[in-house]
Amino acid sequence: MSGRNFLFVPGPTNVPDRILRAMHRAQEDHRSSAFPALTKGILGDLPKVFGTTKGQAFVLPASGTAMWETAIVNSLSPGDRVLAVRNGQFSHLFVDAAQRLGMQVDIIEVEWGAAISAAQIQSALEADKARAIKAVLVVHNETATGVTSDIAAVRAAMNAAKHAALLLVDGVSSIGSLEFKMDAWGVDFGIAGSQKGFMMPAGLGILCVGPKGLEAVKTATCPRAFFDLRDHITTNATGYFPYTPSLAHLYGLREALDMLLAEGMANVAARHKRLGEGVRRAVAAWKLEACAKDPSTQSDTVTAIVVPAGADAEQVRDIAFKKYNLALGAGLGPLRGRVFRIGHLGDLNELMLLGALAGTEMTLVDAGIPVTLGSGVAAAQAWYRSTAS
Amino acid sequence: MSGRNFLFVPGPTNVPDRILRAMHRAQEDHRSSAFPALTKGILGDLPKVFGTTKGQAFVLPASGTAMWETAIVNSLSPGDRVLAVRNGQFSHLFVDAAQRLGMQVDIIEVEWGAAISAAQIQSALEADKARAIKAVLVVHNETATGVTSDIAAVRAAMNAAKHAALLLVDGVSSIGSLEFKMDAWGVDFGIAGSQKGFMMPAGLGILCVGPKGLEAVKTATCPRAFFDLRDHITTNATGYFPYTPSLAHLYGLREALDMLLAEGMANVAARHKRLGEGVRRAVAAWKLEACAKDPSTQSDTVTAIVVPAGADAEQVRDIAFKKYNLALGAGLGPLRGRVFRIGHLGDLNELMLLGALAGTEMTLVDAGIPVTLGSGVAAAQAWYRSTAS
Amino acid sequence: MSGRNFLFVPGPTNVPDRILRAMHRAQEDHRSSAFPALTKGILGDLPKVFGTTKGQAFVLPASGTAMWETAIVNSLSPGDRVLAVRNGQFSHLFVDAAQRLGMQVDIIEVEWGAAISAAQIQSALEADKARAIKAVLVVHNETATGVTSDIAAVRAAMNAAKHAALLLVDGVSSIGSLEFKMDAWGVDFGIAGSQKGFMMPAGLGILCVGPKGLEAVKTATCPRAFFDLRDHITTNATGYFPYTPSLAHLYGLREALDMLLAEGMANVAARHKRLGEGVRRAVAAWKLEACAKDPSTQSDTVTAIVVPAGADAEQVRDIAFKKYNLALGAGLGPLRGRVFRIGHLGDLNELMLLGALAGTEMTLVDAGIPVTLGSGVAAAQAWYRSTAS
Amino acid sequence: MSGRNFLFVPGPTNVPDRILRAMHRAQEDHRSSAFPALTKGILGDLPKVFGTTKGQAFVLPASGTAMWETAIVNSLSPGDRVLAVRNGQFSHLFVDAAQRLGMQVDIIEVEWGAAISAAQIQSALEADKARAIKAVLVVHNETATGVTSDIAAVRAAMNAAKHAALLLVDGVSSIGSLEFKMDAWGVDFGIAGSQKGFMMPAGLGILCVGPKGLEAVKTATCPRAFFDLRDHITTNATGYFPYTPSLAHLYGLREALDMLLAEGMANVAARHKRLGEGVRRAVAAWKLEACAKDPSTQSDTVTAIVVPAGADAEQVRDIAFKKYNLALGAGLGPLRGRVFRIGHLGDLNELMLLGALAGTEMTLVDAGIPVTLGSGVAAAQAWYRSTAS
Repeated sequence: MSGRNFLFVPGPTNVPDRILRAMHRAQEDHRSSAFPALTKGILGDLPKVFGTTKGQAFVLPASGTAMWETAIVNSLSPGDRVLAVRNGQFSHLFVDAAQRLGMQVDIIEVEWGAAISAAQIQSALEADKARAIKAVLVVHNETATGVTSDIAAVRAAMNAAKHAALLLVDGVSSIGSLEFKMDAWGVDFGIAGSQKGFMMPAGLGILCVGPKGLEAVKTATCPRAFFDLRDHITTNATGYFPYTPSLAHLYGLREALDMLLAEGMANVAARHKRLGEGVRRAVAAWKLEACAKDPSTQSDTVTAIVVPAGADAEQVRDIAFKKYNLALGAGLGPLRGRVFRIGHLGDLNELMLLGALAGTEMTLVDAGIPVTLGSGVAAAQAWYRSTAS
Repeated sequence: MSGRNFLFVPGPTNVPDRILRAMHRAQEDHRSSAFPALTKGILGDLPKVFGTTKGQAFVLPASGTAMWETAIVNSLSPGDRVLAVRNGQFSHLFVDAAQRLGMQVDIIEVEWGAAISAAQIQSALEADKARAIKAVLVVHNETATGVTSDIAAVRAAMNAAKHAALLLVDGVSSIGSLEFKMDAWGVDFGIAGSQKGFMMPAGLGILCVGPKGLEAVKTATCPRAFFDLRDHITTNATGYFPYTPSLAHLYGLREALDMLLAEGMANVAARHKRLGEGVRRAVAAWKLEACAKDPSTQSDTVTAIVVPAGADAEQVRDIAFKKYNLALGAGLGPLRGRVFRIGHLGDLNELMLLGALAGTEMTLVDAGIPVTLGSGVAAAQAWYRSTAS
Repeated sequence: MSGRNFLFVPGPTNVPDRILRAMHRAQEDHRSSAFPALTKGILGDLPKVFGTTKGQAFVLPASGTAMWETAIVNSLSPGDRVLAVRNGQFSHLFVDAAQRLGMQVDIIEVEWGAAISAAQIQSALEADKARAIKAVLVVHNETATGVTSDIAAVRAAMNAAKHAALLLVDGVSSIGSLEFKMDAWGVDFGIAGSQKGFMMPAGLGILCVGPKGLEAVKTATCPRAFFDLRDHITTNATGYFPYTPSLAHLYGLREALDMLLAEGMANVAARHKRLGEGVRRAVAAWKLEACAKDPSTQSDTVTAIVVPAGADAEQVRDIAFKKYNLALGAGLGPLRGRVFRIGHLGDLNELMLLGALAGTEMTLVDAGIPVTLGSGVAAAQAWYRSTAS
Repeated sequence: MSGRNFLFVPGPTNVPDRILRAMHRAQEDHRSSAFPALTKGILGDLPKVFGTTKGQAFVLPASGTAMWETAIVNSLSPGDRVLAVRNGQFSHLFVDAAQRLGMQVDIIEVEWGAAISAAQIQSALEADKARAIKAVLVVHNETATGVTSDIAAVRAAMNAAKHAALLLVDGVSSIGSLEFKMDAWGVDFGIAGSQKGFMMPAGLGILCVGPKGLEAVKTATCPRAFFDLRDHITTNATGYFPYTPSLAHLYGLREALDMLLAEGMANVAARHKRLGEGVRRAVAAWKLEACAKDPSTQSDTVTAIVVPAGADAEQVRDIAFKKYNLALGAGLGPLRGRVFRIGHLGDLNELMLLGALAGTEMTLVDAGIPVTLGSGVAAAQAWYRSTAS
C-alpha cells in the first residue's frame, strides 16, 4: 500500500520522527557511572508534565494499565475498601484490576458517555461513617467514551466530605495532552503510559505519586515484587533502576519531555483543545452524535461517535482501514458496534486531521450512513483557519 | 510544530519508512568480495523501471540534473548541433546545460504549459538536410508546468523524418511514476534521479542507455572524467564502481526497486493516474486553471495551478508553509508568482492528498482567492470513493 | 568520545542493526484486522527457541524479572511452599520475589560459583512426604557467577523423587543462547527477557509455559491482574493482546526470531560455546580464576572473573569504562568488588571479543593486577583461529 | 554472520550512530523559507575544518573524486599546463582527471611510498620561465601508500620560485582528520569527500576555495554545468542550491560538523596521531614494512603494509573478510597484491583498532606470514595504555 497509514486510534499515537530517532541507539550498561545522568534528568522533568512540584515520578517497563496495579498494590492492603466510578471501559478495567487484586470496590455506576458526578462521590464518602474507604479510583479522560471528568471537582467533593481517602487518577489519555494539575487537584497517584500524550511507542508505564501517596507506599501490605515502588525509590535515588530498564524507551521519553516542555504544558493543552474542536464541528456537520452528550465534557483527545441505528460501527472501522488505510478506534465493551472513535492527541496537526476527516466521510458514505462529502472537512477547515496563528 | 510536514512539492517526494530504514546502515567495503551482489542486483533490475530489456543502467552519486550532463558528454562531441524543445524550466535548463557544455542548440520554443509538438520536431529534422543534428533533447514530463509530452510521438516523428539523431529524454519526474517505454519509444538516453518516482532522498543520478546510445559513448569526444560512462561500463561489469559509491543510496534504491517491481510498473502508473485525477477535479471545483491547458497533457505527477490575476502564487506558498505546514511547489522562471504546484508522485495515498487539498483550500481563502472550503476536497473524495478498490 | 562503546555486560547485549531498523517504525492500530498476523507469527515461532512443541509462549511489556512474578502468580496460591536453589544474585532475587508474593520458600543454599546439585533437590523432595512443595525454582544460568546448571539433571532428580512439583526455570541469560530443551527437560515455566540472547533492548518479558503449567494457571489463586495469563490466553488466541502491546519490541522480536531460526538453535549454542571458550582461555593465560570453579559448569554466555586479593573489581570496571570505553559487568551482591564479568552472548564475533579482551588486559595492568599485555588475546586468538570455519 | 563487521578500509569509514540518526529523516522542500538556515550553518562552519577564515566552502551531491573535476574545471581553461606530483594511485587518478579534462600535465614521478619533494616542485616551477604552468596539483595524504606530504613545504617552494600557479590539494583522506591549514599553507582549492574524516556515507563532495581560487572561477573557460561553482556562489548566497541537494547528507554533515568542532580540529588531529602510532608499533612488532619508508611521512589515517616476497596481499584481504569479518584495504594499481592497508581514521577508538589488529594477526598467520599472535596487539596496547587520558 502506497503512502502513510492514518493512525487515528486514541493510542498508540503517532510517534514523531525525533523520538523514533532518539530510540534508535545502541544499548548501554545500565549500571555504568554515566547512566544516572539520564535517569535523574527524566525523573526530574516528569513531574512538570503532571503539574506537580511535590510528587515523585516513576517509570516502569510496562503498559499504562500496569500502572493501575502499581498504584493499587503500593497504596492499599488486601481487602481494603475503595470507591470507584465506572463510566466507560477503562474505568471498568480499573475496577476490575482492583477487584482482582483483592480490594472491595464500591462502584458508582454512571451512564457510559457521562462524566463523573462529584456530588455522588461526596455522598458516598459522607455515607462512609467508618472511614473504611481507603481510596477513590477515577479516570480523568474516559478513552472509551470521549468524556473528560472534572478532577478538581472530585477533590473538592472529597474535601467537602472531609474524607481522607487517597485519590488515584487514571490519566492515561489525558496526561501530556490535557491540563493536569496534580498538586492543585490533590491527586495522590497519577497514572500514565507512554503511548498517548507522551507520543511514544507503548511499553513504558509512567506514574507520579504525591506526598500522601508516598506515605501510603510504606504501609501498604499488598504482596508485590515487580511493582514494588520501594525498590524504585531506593535505586532511583542513585540514578539506577531495580531491574534492566528499557533503554530505548528512556531515550524516547527524554526526547518527548524535551518536546513537551519546550512547547509548555499550557500550550500543549491549548493545541489539543483547538484540534479537538475541529473534529467536534465536523461531527456536528455530519449530523452525528458524540457519545459524550454534555458538550462541556467532550474530550480534547478523543471523540467517540455514535453511528445511527441500524449501522455497524465495526463495519465503518473495517472500510476505513481496508479501503482508505485509516485506523479508527473501536467501540469497546458494550459500545462495540455502536460507536467508533477518532483519536486526536499527540503529534498531530490540522492537515493530518483533515485528511482523516475526509477519509471518515468517504467511509461513512460507503457504509450507507448519509453524510455529505466535504461537509465535515469544511466545518473543521473554517474553525482551523479562523484560529490558526 | 506538531505533526508531520505535508510535502507536496514535485520532488523531493516522501520517502517511505521502508526505504529510510534500508538506508540507515553501517558502511561497507565497496571493494569486498560480497559487494558485487548488491551492484548487480540493482543494475539488473533498474532497466525494468525504464521499460527496457536492451538498455544498460547506470547510477552515479549525483543529482538528476547531473544526468543531463552525463547523457550529453557521453553521446556528443564539442560543437555538435542538437535539437531541443523548450516548454518549461527544466527543458530550459537542459538546453542551458547543453550550451554550457559546448553544443549548438536549435531550440523549438513552445509555450510554457503546452506539450512538445512532434510535428515541429519532424519539420526541424527534415529541414536538417546535412544531418548535422546529432541528438534530440526533450523532457518527458515538464515538472515546472505539469505537462506530459508524448515521447512515442516524438520517436515516430524522428522515424518519419528518417533522421538518425539520438533521442535524449529527461524523465526525472516521470520514470518510476508514469508509463515509460524506453525500448518501444526508442529512447537512447533515459534520465532520472532518486528523489521523485524512486521515492528516495536526492543524491543519486540514474540513467539508462540503449544500444545506440552505448555505441555513441565510444565515439563521443567531450572531455569527461567523473561522468565518463566508459569507467562505469568497465567496473560495473565486475560488480564495482569507479569511485566510492553512495552506499546508503544504493541500499535505498534496492528497497525502492523491490517496492516498485512488486507493485508492477503498470500498476504504479495507474495509481498515479488515479491520484492525479483527484487533484485535477479539485482544481476544477475551485474554478482555477491548470497551467497545462490541454487536459490530455496534464501530468499525473504534478499539477501547476495558475493563480488569478492580481494574486501572488509565492504568497500562497508562504501561507501554506508557515500557517499549515504544507509545502507546495514554486512557480519557476517566468512562472514565478503566477503558478504554484502540487506534486502528486511517489509514496502517496488519497488521505494524504485530501489533507493537502484541504490545506490548499484554506490557504487560497487566506490569500484572498475565492474558493469554497471543502469544495475541492469533496470533488476529489467523490472520485477516490468511486474508484477505490 | 570517538568510536563505539564496547558493551560486554551480560545484558543488555548488542542489538544488531537489523533489529534496530525493524524497531524504528510508525505505530499501528493494535486492534486492526491486519494485526493478528504479527502476533500469531511471533507466538508460533517463540516455542522453537525454548525447545518445545507443546508449550505456549507469552510476551509481556515488562522486564525479564517480571517473568519470575508472572510464573509464580500464575502457578501458585498464597502460602504455597516451594523449593528453590540459591547460588547467585539472580536465584536470590527469584527467591525474594517468591517470598514477597507470599510463598514459603525452602532454600537450598549453594556456594556462589557452584552449580545446582540435583542430588540435593532429590533429597529435599523425597523428604517432602506430605507433598507440600508445589514448585521447584531454579536458575539455569546464573548470570552473577557465570555458572550453568544441568536442568536435565534437575528434572531427573524430580522424577527420581516421584514428586509432582512444577519446575520453574529462569533462563534469562540462557534461552536464545545456550541449549534449552523445555520439552525434554520437563520445564513447566521457562522464563526469558528480550535483552540477552534475543539481542533486543530490554522491555519485553518472554515466557513459555508447558502443558502442566497451563493447567496450573487455571487453579492458581494468587491475586493478579497485569500478569494474569488467562487474559493473554484468551486474547492471544485471536491475535491480540489484553493491553496495548509494545509494538516496537514486537517488530524487534520478529526480526530476532528470523535471525535465530535462520541460524538454527543448535548453531547458536555452538557459536556461544566457541566464543566463550576463547574468553576462558584468556582468563587462564592471565592466571586469574573464574568464579565458576568447576570447568564443566562454566557458562558460555558470561564469565565472572575473580580479582586477586587486595584488588577491587569495581575499580577495574571504572577504569575500563572511563579510560577505554569498555563496559564490564559488576560483581553483584556479596560478589561486589570481588568479581567483574565479561558477557559473551548475543550478537558478537571474535574480533569484538578480542578487542574487549585487549581492553581488559590494559585495564588489569592499570589496576595493578599483573597480567602480560597480549597474553590473553593470544590465547583466544589461537583458539579462534584453529576453530574458525 | 554474528556481530559487527570490522571496517578498516581507509574510507568509507565508520559512521557514528549520531550521524546515521541525523540522516534518517523525512524529506523537505529545498525551496522553503526555512531551508536557508541549514545551508548557511553548514557553509559557515565548513571552512573551520579546512583551517581557513578566507575560503568559501561548497558541497555537491557527488563523490570526493568529482571534486578533482570541480577544482580543475573551475580554475583552468582547456589546454592549460599544470604541474602534478604522482606518488600513488590517487595522485595518479588526479593527473588522469586533469588529462581527460584537456590539461597538459607535467608530471613529477615519485616512488610510490615516498612523499612529495618540495625541492622538485620548486625546480619545475623555476624552470617554467614562461609561467605557463597555471596550477600545481598534489595529494596531501596518499591513501594508496599511507604517505602524508608536507603541504606547507610545497607552498614554500612555490613562493621561493616566485610562481603564481594555483595550488590544488586533494585532502580527501586528510581533511577532517589530519592537521590542514588552508590559509597558512596557501591552498587555493582544498578537496574533500564525506566518507573519510567527515565520518559520513559517501555521496557528498566537499570543497573549499580560497580568495585566489575564487578569482580563477570567474575566468576559467572549461565547459561546465553540474560542476559550475558560479551557480553555487549565486544560490548559496541566499541559502539555496542550484539543484535538489542531498538532504540526508546535509543533515549528516551538520551533525558531523557539530562533532568535529566540539572536539576541536587540533584534538581531532592529535587523536588520529595517537591511534595511528599504535598501528605502526604493531606493524613493527610483526617485523613487517610499511609502504611509507620514511617514518616522518607515515600517515596518521592509513597504513599500507607490504607483504613479504611470495605472499599475496589480496589473499590476506580475502581471509580477513571471509574468515574474520574484517575489511582491510586493497593495494591499488601497481601495489595490488603487494600491500594491504589498514584505515585508521574517522570514528574509531583503541579497542576497535586492537580488535582489528588481532584479526590481522590471525589472518597473517593463516596466510603463512610468520607473525606471533598477540605481538602487534601487545605493542599497540603498551602505547595506548601509556598515552590514554
